[in-house]
Amino acid sequence: MTNPYNTDLDRNNANYQPLTPITFLERAADVFPNHTAIIHGSLKYKYKDFFNRSKNIASALSKRKILRGDTVSVLLLNTPAMLEVHYGVPMCGAVLHAINTRLNATVIAYQLDHSDSKILIYDKELRSVANQALSIAKVSPELIEYTDNQCDYSDHIDENNNPIKEAVDYEKFIETGDNNFQWLKPEDEWDAISVGYTSGTTGNPKGVVSHHRGAYLLAQGNALIASMEKHSVYLWTLPMFHCNGWCFPWTMSAIIGTHVCLRQVRVEPIWKYIEEHKVTHLCGAPIVMSVILSKENMKNIKLEKQVNFFTAAAPPPESVLIDMKNAGFNVTHLYGLTETYGPAVVNEWNSDWNDLNNSSQAALKARQGVRYLPLENLSVLDPETMKHVPKDGKTIGEVMFRGNIVMKGYLKNKKANDEAFENGWFHSGDLAVIHEDGYIQLKDRSKDIIISGGENISSIEIEEILLKNPSVNSAAVVAIVDDKWGESPCAFIELKSNLTLTNKEALEWCKKRLASFKVPKIFIFEEIPKTSTGKIQKYLLRKRAENIYSSKGLSIK
Amino acid sequence: MTNPYNTDLDRNNANYQPLTPITFLERAADVFPNHTAIIHGSLKYKYKDFFNRSKNIASALSKRKILRGDTVSVLLLNTPAMLEVHYGVPMCGAVLHAINTRLNATVIAYQLDHSDSKILIYDKELRSVANQALSIAKVSPELIEYTDNQCDYSDHIDENNNPIKEAVDYEKFIETGDNNFQWLKPEDEWDAISVGYTSGTTGNPKGVVSHHRGAYLLAQGNALIASMEKHSVYLWTLPMFHCNGWCFPWTMSAIIGTHVCLRQVRVEPIWKYIEEHKVTHLCGAPIVMSVILSKENMKNIKLEKQVNFFTAAAPPPESVLIDMKNAGFNVTHLYGLTETYGPAVVNEWNSDWNDLNNSSQAALKARQGVRYLPLENLSVLDPETMKHVPKDGKTIGEVMFRGNIVMKGYLKNKKANDEAFENGWFHSGDLAVIHEDGYIQLKDRSKDIIISGGENISSIEIEEILLKNPSVNSAAVVAIVDDKWGESPCAFIELKSNLTLTNKEALEWCKKRLASFKVPKIFIFEEIPKTSTGKIQKYLLRKRAENIYSSKGLSIK
Repeated sequence: MTNPYNTDLDRNNANYQPLTPITFLERAADVFPNHTAIIHGSLKYKYKDFFNRSKNIASALSKRKILRGDTVSVLLLNTPAMLEVHYGVPMCGAVLHAINTRLNATVIAYQLDHSDSKILIYDKELRSVANQALSIAKVSPELIEYTDNQCDYSDHIDENNNPIKEAVDYEKFIETGDNNFQWLKPEDEWDAISVGYTSGTTGNPKGVVSHHRGAYLLAQGNALIASMEKHSVYLWTLPMFHCNGWCFPWTMSAIIGTHVCLRQVRVEPIWKYIEEHKVTHLCGAPIVMSVILSKENMKNIKLEKQVNFFTAAAPPPESVLIDMKNAGFNVTHLYGLTETYGPAVVNEWNSDWNDLNNSSQAALKARQGVRYLPLENLSVLDPETMKHVPKDGKTIGEVMFRGNIVMKGYLKNKKANDEAFENGWFHSGDLAVIHEDGYIQLKDRSKDIIISGGENISSIEIEEILLKNPSVNSAAVVAIVDDKWGESPCAFIELKSNLTLTNKEALEWCKKRLASFKVPKIFIFEEIPKTSTGKIQKYLLRKRAENIYSSKGLSIK
Repeated sequence: MTNPYNTDLDRNNANYQPLTPITFLERAADVFPNHTAIIHGSLKYKYKDFFNRSKNIASALSKRKILRGDTVSVLLLNTPAMLEVHYGVPMCGAVLHAINTRLNATVIAYQLDHSDSKILIYDKELRSVANQALSIAKVSPELIEYTDNQCDYSDHIDENNNPIKEAVDYEKFIETGDNNFQWLKPEDEWDAISVGYTSGTTGNPKGVVSHHRGAYLLAQGNALIASMEKHSVYLWTLPMFHCNGWCFPWTMSAIIGTHVCLRQVRVEPIWKYIEEHKVTHLCGAPIVMSVILSKENMKNIKLEKQVNFFTAAAPPPESVLIDMKNAGFNVTHLYGLTETYGPAVVNEWNSDWNDLNNSSQAALKARQGVRYLPLENLSVLDPETMKHVPKDGKTIGEVMFRGNIVMKGYLKNKKANDEAFENGWFHSGDLAVIHEDGYIQLKDRSKDIIISGGENISSIEIEEILLKNPSVNSAAVVAIVDDKWGESPCAFIELKSNLTLTNKEALEWCKKRLASFKVPKIFIFEEIPKTSTGKIQKYLLRKRAENIYSSKGLSIK
């Protein structure tokens, strides 16, 4: 029998429109044209300015024959231009490619070529690396140079370092746009809005493609998860090149909030802006909290109103949580990947836990948590059997995601997509357990797990123990081949300046706190190499261990 | 050339899931199983109970062979059962048909037949009207009777009024469900979630079909527009049969809030619950504000924390706004239709207006406002030319909507759909102007406009003037045929008890305040007929005027 609810009730222009976060800005400009959208030093843009400048960018790109599906690359810091391109580029149908500004020229060139970049907009401070990248790349994008009038470039650039080819000034470029331009809605909400490259600890970086639908949903999800009120104020301590700033460039338009830009994460401007602009929310890796807490005379600080800090990348340490709380911050732990538009998991805080002591609270807060509102499924599965692991807080499996904030896929990489989406789940490559209450906790990257005598050893668990030692600044554990056990843990330790720790002391420290099979067989004391985003480069550590120990007849995983 | 961003990047189960608000409840039950979801008198349900009971309903319906696209009708007050069916019914793929409890048996029977109802769940208090409706209807749905254990039925029902056919007790029905039931996701987010009938001042009511996508988006839109924090508390002063309670049954699960049920809008429980349960939000027609303000000793009242009240249906009068503000309420004016899932337009308050005097603020608040976040377009157009009217606050056109919170269409009514969606806009039938700042203000229903000497006269404008007279309780203006001017206004006036107003006084009142061509030619003093939802029945007034004046040689539009 025909379902009457599916008869003569089709989609039409009146009742179906593609979801896109661009409509948030359009609405904000319509409804609150004079509300401050962006603050950058002494520069302020109202919502009408923000929207008009974005429309101009879209128009100017169209005039340069940028079409749907073309890539526009940007090498920008957390400036107004970076916010503008998050709207202006997709408003002409193009795809935004925000490049990590800490990458070297070779990697940037690879990304420009792989994404077939048509335009590169770069900050004047980054002219040198842009030039180098362009000299390596096969593509030859048109260049637009952004000069931030709030920045004193004299410290940063050599004025004699001329552009490799003629670059148009960003403001002049905007002037070539027509403000009456009718911006292009996506033809389908599944159309790409951005491409962002994974940092790629091994092999070539992969281009993660995001779509308008997902960006719309995560942008709203951020506001709902963070209980962001209308007119909230957001300080940019998170790099916007990082998963499009976790979609917050779009979130803020939905709630008609204010962006406070920040070129560099430094302690003085952070505190200045929090007080001056009444910042309500900010995000960043744990290092940002360390910067905040590095303020002199912290004891004299008490924020008038609680400020919300969202952190990801690594579990926030107990002492940092206590200090942040005392300073007036509410810290929430998030977890996600470029493949999930940024945060997809949140450590939802249960008020029943407020009465626990600090270390119990820190232990609960160290867990990654539960699914974000717009994520339909989150689980930990055995990748072989595709069965959910028991909720015992012990059994390790792979974190898998399913839902509308999972990427469209990797660009020009069918093989990687087939692998990543096998069996209808996105395979994160991260290993975790599920606790009894359904909260997940990361244990390792799948390639970083150490299998010793058939037992899985989490390198993170050992690293956490080492980090609790007051002398240890940074720690990383990798597997070395062990004739008896198959693999054994090898620990790299970077000490705090002026503090010491001997091999014997490190061994004793671990023996007291870890099951014996988890105690590292070898300790190496030296500086630990990290990627531009602060991730430890374990593949380099494995090579390093190999170099050291091959002479001794040991081999390394 | 092939667009690389559309190549090998298709939807799959991992990255695409149909949007449905049911996932909000599933998540709430997973993450905050012990948080209070529903309070009803001394009864409390936690989120795990709410989800489990909803799953049981879905399972019990499935066992009764209810399939995708079947209609489940409910005749329920604002009780826990009404919340449960908002999840349980769509969780088995069926479509929820919530019936206005104030309707008479004939109209209910029409709806049951038109929607081909398979199941009717009714509150014991409504057994009598349910029986009558079933005796008229052609369909013979299975019956489930809900007994609210928080209600003393002795005042309401005749225990001898037995069900027309055997009815299963609601709790026993729930017990037949299997709690391990795997609830059915919609096959497509465009699948129907509910059907709600317009009150239909003329002709048969039309069945407005809503889909999962729209319900998901408006549910989130409510939380974002209303800045609803996690764990907000919502008091049910709005009937849930009214556009599915404006989607708030789903909104609250998204923010893990608490529902406070209310069988009847009465002043004592409203104040009791606001204080006892720390209510943060409530909604309703202006009459609900009158009920709230009818509390004795209002002067002694001051709410500890501001409570948000969302009102729709008619602009809130100035005196009510002042009294509400003094009592500690923040009133926001919304506008929408059953066809837009409830609110689609919001009077977004601009803080620049806070310094204006009360009457200026009331005038600004009387405007319907701007588009809701999930509505893509709102405008006022000339329905003949489909051109947008100028933003002059004067030129009247028809309010039109475009976006994802516009209904799927009218059930089994292709003709009405073709008309409603003509030219890619949803035609509301409401007439309005757009002010310079883009805020729309309703002027009339299109069929209620009075055209006199080629000038459009808004019946609402005249009614507002009449309502300002201290003796007038209710006023309605319709057109009568006028040989000279084509049409002229005729005013119906219902006086407050113990107050008087003569024909001459009414005429003087209007002459002082209206352009002469807008002054009603005739005043009729009598009770004004209203629909079950409180809308004035102008078609009855036109007939009434015709009866009175046909003898005098006048004819009525």
